[in-house]
Amino acid sequence: MSDTGPAGRPTVMVCITCRATDLGAASEEAPRPGNALADATLLAAAGTDGIAVLRVRCLGNCSRGPSAAIRCENTWTYIFGGLDPQRDGPSLIMGAQLLAQATDGIMPWRGRPESLKRGLIARIPPLNFREDPS
Amino acid sequence: MSDTGPAGRPTVMVCITCRATDLGAASEEAPRPGNALADATLLAAAGTDGIAVLRVRCLGNCSRGPSAAIRCENTWTYIFGGLDPQRDGPSLIMGAQLLAQATDGIMPWRGRPESLKRGLIARIPPLNFREDPS
Repeated sequence: MSDTGPAGRPTVMVCITCRATDLGAASEEAPRPGNALADATLLAAAGTDGIAVLRVRCLGNCSRGPSAAIRCENTWTYIFGGLDPQRDGPSLIMGAQLLAQATDGIMPWRGRPESLKRGLIARIPPLNFREDPS
Repeated sequence: MSDTGPAGRPTVMVCITCRATDLGAASEEAPRPGNALADATLLAAAGTDGIAVLRVRCLGNCSRGPSAAIRCENTWTYIFGGLDPQRDGPSLIMGAQLLAQATDGIMPWRGRPESLKRGLIARIPPLNFREDPS
């Protein structure tokens, strides 16, 4: 399938300032896992058509990193945490593809990589969102 | 000061599906604190000029609600959790005013209500964001 679906061009934003949360004092000096995740996501995006990957500092999810966000032009934006630089570059690209194909602007649960299910931090409506009834 | 500053019109999105996290099984039947927070935010916005308040279901921050997000037309979007329906309607409006006045699209730390400091869940770049160097 094309990577630029009804929802417009997908963008994956990877937080490059995220530190490992399990290294204690050593984490200040250690290589940033967020940077490794950004590299892995860029690599996974290389075989796709039209998925942008951006390095961001920072997404503010510091206590539950590594973090990344996914959005298309007219969709909700999804923020994920607890990602694994060794595994989740392809997961983020798969999530971006799912969102780009969505006709309702919502990333489907079905088919979503496991880390994008249990790692959901928050989601934000698109700019053209109209409020839900109370 | 005007509520619509350099960053454009501010919008506060309040999650109306957030439940109280300390009620256990009773929370299913209890009134939704998210709805109460939305009412309080609308009330606080009534004296302002041009701040939109929208009810949203849901922002996906279910384990750390009540939740709300703030953005202007050309700013970062901020998501907050652990909000208090009795207190934080005015806090959200004050945060929206701070963000609307920002010339760099970033909500200043100084002057930010306490609940918008310790309650930060994540933040997302504006649509015109260009990536940070690695």
